[in-house]
Amino acid sequence: MSNNTKDIIFIGKKPLMTYVTAAILQLSILPSITLKARGLSISSAVTVAQIILKRTNTFKLGDIKIDSESLDSLDGKKRNVSTIEIPVNRIEQQVGN
Amino acid sequence: MSNNTKDIIFIGKKPLMTYVTAAILQLSILPSITLKARGLSISSAVTVAQIILKRTNTFKLGDIKIDSESLDSLDGKKRNVSTIEIPVNRIEQQVGN
Repeated sequence: MSNNTKDIIFIGKKPLMTYVTAAILQLSILPSITLKARGLSISSAVTVAQIILKRTNTFKLGDIKIDSESLDSLDGKKRNVSTIEIPVNRIEQQVGN
Repeated sequence: MSNNTKDIIFIGKKPLMTYVTAAILQLSILPSITLKARGLSISSAVTVAQIILKRTNTFKLGDIKIDSESLDSLDGKKRNVSTIEIPVNRIEQQVGN
């Protein structure tokens, strides 16, 4: 799958508007995308979703999922890290009405 | 409403297990509670919810909501802060089956 059609956007440490722009660009091509984040970036993912919703009237949220993943840390122990998935869907425009 | 029957737990900067313990205590009295957080504490709220779910088999999540609030900051400007609400419900036990 090429970079132009990816429907999952991983939220990390870049400036928030980077992700907002990327998400809106993808949503001009695709009917829906999913914002994913883990750990402290979860707060950023929520903010990115809110910016997308408040700036435009053409998107709505799907069912938000939270989970946790088990990672091997550098000291060899297992660590659980929380994750979030926020689906953002394009509201289909009524054509011809 | 007394402290013993509050159904909303605000997640802040205390150690996570403080909120986990408070939530499980409330869920022994009430059928459901809601974890609320804003800003960077959103990640903590997700982790608290995950700890509650993974340690026990008696709770399930409701529909997670995200939103944003407008706050007046100290410099007089408006600032938007993201919020999350995570409902945690007790799974009703089948009695006598």
